[in-house]
Amino acid sequence: MTDMTQDDFIAAVSFNADGLVPAIAQDAEDGRVLMLAWMNAESLKRTLAEGRAVYWSRSRQALWRKGDESGHIQRLAEIWLDCDGDTVLMKVHQTGPACHTGTPTCFFRTTRHAL
Amino acid sequence: MTDMTQDDFIAAVSFNADGLVPAIAQDAEDGRVLMLAWMNAESLKRTLAEGRAVYWSRSRQALWRKGDESGHIQRLAEIWLDCDGDTVLMKVHQTGPACHTGTPTCFFRTTRHAL
Repeated sequence: MTDMTQDDFIAAVSFNADGLVPAIAQDAEDGRVLMLAWMNAESLKRTLAEGRAVYWSRSRQALWRKGDESGHIQRLAEIWLDCDGDTVLMKVHQTGPACHTGTPTCFFRTTRHAL
Repeated sequence: MTDMTQDDFIAAVSFNADGLVPAIAQDAEDGRVLMLAWMNAESLKRTLAEGRAVYWSRSRQALWRKGDESGHIQRLAEIWLDCDGDTVLMKVHQTGPACHTGTPTCFFRTTRHAL
């Protein structure tokens, strides 16, 4: 485990050509993966500064402080960066359902597969 | 929970402009998020057909049957698709470390934040 300063953490992020990085939100209590959304540098800085998930909405092209409208905020418990710096993982305390459909997690569709 | 046929599942995936979708691998035993990599339609089909994670390597521009070289394969336990079809989540039985650096998970860098 490598504990970095916030500045070093942000500098280590490899944003894509659109200036975005995928951010996974995982429930800090039960370990469920809740959703994946995107962050630009500004939303990552705000996430760290405010201690809650702030994404970049690609459809609205605007900062998206998760829960500002729905009340379903994500309070940050832990934040992690992967080996090559191109994915962020947050463990969050989720208020209400994570998904805009009203389900606890956005991942509610499945299929069977070869074993 | 919606249980789909494999064909319906694949058809519901919203691949990006490069024909790719992010795929999260989560440890089926302990719930740790292991890594995020990318899949095209062919790698998703192979993942379902073979019951093990097959990604698309963006750096090598080739199918990447995880573990073929390292032995660190990911056997598929469950596969999920999110509400808008643009992220895949796999629960996997991981052999050895998931990360090419030798750590169990690719997410080993962290920082502190406001509370």
